[in-house]
Amino acid sequence: MAKNKKDKELKIKIKKAKKEDFDKILDLIKELAAFEKLEGPDKIASRRFFKDTFGKKPLINMLVAKEGKEILGYAIYFESYSSFLAKKTLFLEDIFITQSRRNTGIGKLFFDRLIEIANDRGCGRVEWAVLDWNIDAIAFYNKIGATPLSNWEYYRLTL
Amino acid sequence: MAKNKKDKELKIKIKKAKKEDFDKILDLIKELAAFEKLEGPDKIASRRFFKDTFGKKPLINMLVAKEGKEILGYAIYFESYSSFLAKKTLFLEDIFITQSRRNTGIGKLFFDRLIEIANDRGCGRVEWAVLDWNIDAIAFYNKIGATPLSNWEYYRLTL
Repeated sequence: MAKNKKDKELKIKIKKAKKEDFDKILDLIKELAAFEKLEGPDKIASRRFFKDTFGKKPLINMLVAKEGKEILGYAIYFESYSSFLAKKTLFLEDIFITQSRRNTGIGKLFFDRLIEIANDRGCGRVEWAVLDWNIDAIAFYNKIGATPLSNWEYYRLTL
Repeated sequence: MAKNKKDKELKIKIKKAKKEDFDKILDLIKELAAFEKLEGPDKIASRRFFKDTFGKKPLINMLVAKEGKEILGYAIYFESYSSFLAKKTLFLEDIFITQSRRNTGIGKLFFDRLIEIANDRGCGRVEWAVLDWNIDAIAFYNKIGATPLSNWEYYRLTL
């Protein structure tokens, strides 16, 4: 009985990322970039990213899914804002779970925590973007009750 | 000659919004909400919005287009973040120009200033969203060299 309890305590936990997690997180970020067929951060960008996450003035927040010492996934978020709602939005910049551990409930664990954080911070919404061919992720987002902002088109100016 | 110069100085200028501009800005926000067929801020949200703009810990930045004392439009922005770029993004939450003064170059004035601010702050991108039926705005965004993020779908969880 006691052993069973200890086993359970070793299961997957969502935690705030620590500096010592960074190398493993960077591997996952590169895995995400490859999966999305996008350019991930190069060496200089990775260094900036470390500073923006763990430096004196963090620009983003990072969560990791840990099983013992192993890191199975990460989520990056920051606060944006809705002027019509006049409330903060929790914007989820990245969420990624390593290939071999998909569909095991880790995504749900992340979202439960993110919603908790968003409520604690007084946010009115959680928002994020997904590539339109990522049908597994989209199925998951629909299942948890999220709504696609289908009539909005996002625009970018690269500086 | 001197008079001409003075006339020019009275032309449209992009300025940081001030507390005393708020009532007029609120009228414009309501005009935008009606234009977008969306729910604008109610009385309580408007009060929160004032605090989030002009309070001790502002969550957003606001610019206005002024012609003398008249306010012809506004833009609301904040900083978001790109993890792959490892740089801040200037996110333009709202840009609106009053109906009677569209297509007179005010949008360009706003974007010139926003790009200047984004560069000053070390942002890698300027991003925003537009309703897909707002073809005049879309034509303008294409003209200034912006790219639609067509293969991304945005999702929302309302809390």
